[in-house]
Amino acid sequence: MKVKAYAAKEAKGELQPFEYELGDIDKEQVDIKVDYCGLCHSDISMINNDWGMSEYPLVPGHEIVGEVINVGSEVKGLKKGDKVGMGWYSASCMHCNQCMDGKQHLCNTAEATIVGRHGGFADVVRGHWSWATVLPEGIDMSKAGPLFCGGITVFNPIVLSGVKPTDKVGVIGIGGLGHMALKFLKAWGCEVTAFTSNKSKEDALKKMGAHNVVDSTNSDELERITGTLDFILNTTNVKLDWDAYLTTLAPQGKLHTVGAVLEPMEIPAFSMISGEKSVGGSPLGSIALTRKMLEFCVRHDIYPTVEEFKMEDVNKAIKHLHDGKARFRLVLKA
Amino acid sequence: MKVKAYAAKEAKGELQPFEYELGDIDKEQVDIKVDYCGLCHSDISMINNDWGMSEYPLVPGHEIVGEVINVGSEVKGLKKGDKVGMGWYSASCMHCNQCMDGKQHLCNTAEATIVGRHGGFADVVRGHWSWATVLPEGIDMSKAGPLFCGGITVFNPIVLSGVKPTDKVGVIGIGGLGHMALKFLKAWGCEVTAFTSNKSKEDALKKMGAHNVVDSTNSDELERITGTLDFILNTTNVKLDWDAYLTTLAPQGKLHTVGAVLEPMEIPAFSMISGEKSVGGSPLGSIALTRKMLEFCVRHDIYPTVEEFKMEDVNKAIKHLHDGKARFRLVLKA
Repeated sequence: MKVKAYAAKEAKGELQPFEYELGDIDKEQVDIKVDYCGLCHSDISMINNDWGMSEYPLVPGHEIVGEVINVGSEVKGLKKGDKVGMGWYSASCMHCNQCMDGKQHLCNTAEATIVGRHGGFADVVRGHWSWATVLPEGIDMSKAGPLFCGGITVFNPIVLSGVKPTDKVGVIGIGGLGHMALKFLKAWGCEVTAFTSNKSKEDALKKMGAHNVVDSTNSDELERITGTLDFILNTTNVKLDWDAYLTTLAPQGKLHTVGAVLEPMEIPAFSMISGEKSVGGSPLGSIALTRKMLEFCVRHDIYPTVEEFKMEDVNKAIKHLHDGKARFRLVLKA
Repeated sequence: MKVKAYAAKEAKGELQPFEYELGDIDKEQVDIKVDYCGLCHSDISMINNDWGMSEYPLVPGHEIVGEVINVGSEVKGLKKGDKVGMGWYSASCMHCNQCMDGKQHLCNTAEATIVGRHGGFADVVRGHWSWATVLPEGIDMSKAGPLFCGGITVFNPIVLSGVKPTDKVGVIGIGGLGHMALKFLKAWGCEVTAFTSNKSKEDALKKMGAHNVVDSTNSDELERITGTLDFILNTTNVKLDWDAYLTTLAPQGKLHTVGAVLEPMEIPAFSMISGEKSVGGSPLGSIALTRKMLEFCVRHDIYPTVEEFKMEDVNKAIKHLHDGKARFRLVLKA
C-alpha cells in the first residue's frame, strides 16, 4: 500500500508531500486510516533533530485517531472498522517485566511512532494492536488526538502520585499540557491552583478548572500558600526555583515533573526531609491507564482546547505552535 | 526535684556535671529515670551550635530508655514503673492536622528533647506522655536507646516508601544509621546492597544483613547494577553523584535521603521521567510507627551494634564518636 504523508527531508526542513510504500503487515499489526492527528512540541523537536535520533525523511505525528482498515492474522481485540487512537508509542515487546506488569510505557525497547519509522501526518499509519486503543462510545474524535500524548502525560502522574479528590493541587505552566491537567484535576475533585507568569490569563484559567491563580513571579503570592498543596505538576521545561515550590507543599506533598527540564533540578535535602516531601517524574502512561483516561474524559466531557488545521496546512500549524500562539493544542484534520 | 546532668556551658564546650531544678510536673507529663541514653551525631551538632538553635547550659541526650517515676494527673496509658523510651521529640501539640493524622513527628510545634530544654544525659528527663513509648516485653534496654532516634529515622522511610519484601534495596553510608537500615531491610525480606567506599568492611556488612557490597567509588561496580534497585536509602550528608544512583534504580524506583545533605541535590529531570523514578526525604517517624518498630525489633532480635560507656565518661564517648571510631552506635549507661 502507498501511504500519502508529509515529511521533513532534513533537520528543520519544511514538511513536504511524501509517499512511501507500506510493506506486508505483520501478524500483530494494524493499519489505521488517520482522521485527525495532533501536533505536539515533540514533533517539532523531532523535525529539528533536537534529540539526535531523527531519521529523514521523517513523517511526524503521534496523536492519531482514526479507523482500523487492516489487521494482521494474530491481532487481538481489534477488527476492521474500529475507531482507535495511537500516541507516542506504536509497539512494545509485551514480554519484559515492565510489559508483563502493565507498564508497557516503561518497556526498554518500546517503539516510538515517529522514531525510525513514519507517523500520523499521513493518510495511514501502522502499529502493534496493543497500542491502538479503542475509542469509547460518544468521544469527540476531532479533539481526542492530543489525549494520546499530552493527555496521558498529565493524567498518569495524577494516578501515579495517588492524588485524592480531597487534595489541594497546583499546575505549573498552562500550555498544551498544563491546560489539560487543570481540566483533569478539576474533574478529579481537587482544589486546583494554576501557577502562571501571565495573570492576564486568569479568567481563561478559571474557566478551565483553576480555583486559584497564583502569579509564579511574585514571591509574596507563593509565600501566601506556604505548606498548603499536596501535589504540584510541572509541565514546563525551564529552570525554576524548585525550593520555592517545595515550600508551598504540605507535609508529604509531591512535586512531579513531566517537563524535561534540561538543567539538573536543585533540590535541597532538608526541604524534603522536614516535611517528608518528594520529587518525581514520569513519561506518558500505560495502555490500561490510557483506556481509563478515555472513559474519564467521556464521562466528564474533558477535551483539550484545540485549534484545527487541515493536514495540508501542516506548515502553517507548525509555525503557529512555534510562535507560541497555540491556544492550547493543535489538531490536523486529514 | 533536683536533676543531676551533664551540660555544655558554651558552644563546643566539654560536658560538665550540672544540676538543675525540675519544677512542678504538668498534668500531661511524665518523668523518666534514665537507665541508658544513646549518643547521636545530633547531640554533637547541638553542643557545637551547628544549627544556631542551642541554648546553654545544654544537656544533650535524646535516645533515652528508662523507667517512669512520676506521672501528671491527666497522663494516658502510662503508670509509675513502666519502662519507656523517648527520642528526638518530647512533645507535640496533639491537635493540629498532622498530630490528628498520626504524623506527630511532622507537627510544626513539636518540642525537641534537647532544644530549649534539657535532655537525657541526666538521671531524670521529662516529657509529654505521648512521646514516652512503652518498651515491649523482652527488649534489651542496654541497646534500645538508639532505636528512638537513629532507628526510627531509617525505619520510617521503609514504610513510607512502601518497600516490599520482594524488593531489591540499597543503603548508602554504613555508619550509625546505615548499619541499622541493613538490619531492618534484611529482616524485611529484601535483597540488600550496601554501598560503601571502604570494601574492607565487606564481611562485617554481610554479617549485618547485606547480600551484596558495592564499592561506591567504582563506577564499573555501579554500572553493573544499572536498573536493578527498587529503593535506595541515603544516610550520608555529603554531596554524591545522585544521577549515578538514580541509574541503579529500576523503573518506579525511589531514592530516599535521611542525610541532611547541605548542598542542593542535583537531580536531572530526565533521569526521573524516563523510569518514573522519585527522590524523597523524611525525618524520624510517628508515635504509632515507633511502637511497631519496637515490636519488629524484638521479633527479629534487631538492635544497633553498640559500644557502651559510663555516663560519667560522656566526654570520652563524644571524642570516640567525633574521631569516627564508633562501631556503630554509642550508649551511655546511667
